Amino acid sequence: MLPVLAVHGGAGHVPKERAEISCAGVRDAARAGYAILRAGGSAMDAVVEAVTVLENNPAYNAGRGSVLTRHGHVEMDAIVMDGRTLASGAVSAVKGIANPVQLARLVMEKTSHLCLTAEGASEFARAMGIQEVPEESLITDYARMRWRKNLQPDANPVECQMGKMGTVGAVAVDSEGNIACATSTGGMLNKMEGRVGDTPCIGCGGYADNKVGAVSPTGHGEAIMKVTLARLILFYMEQGKSAQEAADMGLAYMKERVEGLGGVVVVDPQGVWAARFNSLQMAWAAAQNDQLHYGLYAGEDFSQPIEQPEQNSQ
Amino acid sequence: MLPVLAVHGGAGHVPKERAEISCAGVRDAARAGYAILRAGGSAMDAVVEAVTVLENNPAYNAGRGSVLTRHGHVEMDAIVMDGRTLASGAVSAVKGIANPVQLARLVMEKTSHLCLTAEGASEFARAMGIQEVPEESLITDYARMRWRKNLQPDANPVECQMGKMGTVGAVAVDSEGNIACATSTGGMLNKMEGRVGDTPCIGCGGYADNKVGAVSPTGHGEAIMKVTLARLILFYMEQGKSAQEAADMGLAYMKERVEGLGGVVVVDPQGVWAARFNSLQMAWAAAQNDQLHYGLYAGEDFSQPIEQPEQNSQ
Repeated sequence: MLPVLAVHGGAGHVPKERAEISCAGVRDAARAGYAILRAGGSAMDAVVEAVTVLENNPAYNAGRGSVLTRHGHVEMDAIVMDGRTLASGAVSAVKGIANPVQLARLVMEKTSHLCLTAEGASEFARAMGIQEVPEESLITDYARMRWRKNLQPDANPVECQMGKMGTVGAVAVDSEGNIACATSTGGMLNKMEGRVGDTPCIGCGGYADNKVGAVSPTGHGEAIMKVTLARLILFYMEQGKSAQEAADMGLAYMKERVEGLGGVVVVDPQGVWAARFNSLQMAWAAAQNDQLHYGLYAGEDFSQPIEQPEQNSQ
Repeated sequence: MLPVLAVHGGAGHVPKERAEISCAGVRDAARAGYAILRAGGSAMDAVVEAVTVLENNPAYNAGRGSVLTRHGHVEMDAIVMDGRTLASGAVSAVKGIANPVQLARLVMEKTSHLCLTAEGASEFARAMGIQEVPEESLITDYARMRWRKNLQPDANPVECQMGKMGTVGAVAVDSEGNIACATSTGGMLNKMEGRVGDTPCIGCGGYADNKVGAVSPTGHGEAIMKVTLARLILFYMEQGKSAQEAADMGLAYMKERVEGLGGVVVVDPQGVWAARFNSLQMAWAAAQNDQLHYGLYAGEDFSQPIEQPEQNSQ
């Protein structure tokens, strides 16, 4: 059944005019990641490639297209985790980086640490020869419009966030049975400067263990943190639940205990995958056996041969 | 059996000349936290008070006495968690704050976020009226000596760190059965600027849930993160293990899976407590039924009436 890769483009409500773009983007990312697996590449290479494609796509709240902080800046979080060794790398509140997921991978591979934050992460990026990009290049007109709207006295950024979470993530199992995950986000709309959400927090915004599986969550970051959602779902799987059952149990627990909504993509070591959410929508896609599966609303599972060219892709 | 409070002053190896100071400090902190519980105060008030006492004590790697970064600065991490609601607050890589644990509590109580990092955390502190302190006031001669030593080409900061972890933490159950935890640290010796360890990462550096218990870990931060140690131990307790069994299982798993050593203080909802470690030493103290328990080496559990005045306290 191996290899397999599943991606999400964020849980929440996708406005109608953006639904098709959002679905096309996750299919693109799944194709890109799966191509690596198909060629014998590693799960880590595949999830980083898939998330890089989504960071580069301005339709998502990660990399270019990130939401803005209260003061109008882009501060991004990302994580990767390697299920072979439990090695992980993350960056939080990093500025001026086109692909935070790639910087997170460098933290894992080139330092003895698991997470670098803010200016320290930028300093490391410079030492690694990663060119900083102008903040303007990461900001879309749509992000700026929503930021302005949420500066109004009667604005409700948390409510508005439900309109477009847009965190992106991927999980994969490669042909050798190695498992990895990656997640990347611009965070919460109009967040305070320095706010760190679930994404760079291991066990919350992602977890991967070759013995159990991998999870990449999206949704209300603070709720995901309170229940350590990724690790929680894997604990259910350790207790014998399927990827889908465990995902549903974890999301139900988060809703009941802390009133949080969200979604996840999950894989297990056999290559069984699940894309589950209790928000209104979650753009997701999964690639396996040369078939591409995808959906946006609950219950949807469309499929097509993976080679089929994308009509609505950007 | 309620109330109860248990504290630690870091796992690792305490040099002989610092052993008595280290033990006296955790007894002081346990007394201070327990006095709050004894007077009907909340578990949250008690753990914050205990950790504040330890941050103010230069014998520990938290607040004053923190280790230095590679460039010679103090960057601190802290977390608190309230087991009633799973509310939590944390700060990471924060500078010039005398009591990061109190700032973490303000993040929990005064923002919609769970974690603020670096300059964003400082901005929030200023908005809260918390006066920044000069960095020099946080740096001890001992910290500077160890920093210099670890700048040598043949230095091994990770090895040296085992000589004095010194992260501090507390867990408590109050007379109403509410559970809380708090952890604070200066992090890893000669760490990279911006390095974030386990402490501010929910589920790693602390977790509290009224239904299960609370854990505050100390030890090799990156290893604690890879196994999400606090949450892992609470999962074992959910599966019916005692606080002590669960702590030992969690620590054994961390050693076996990622070769990490450390220690924890744990409480369960009935007020059963445990202080366990697989490092050479961990300074710990616990207060319950007007008795003070404490120890430094494995197997030690000294006790005395809680009123007994401290002879070696600073």
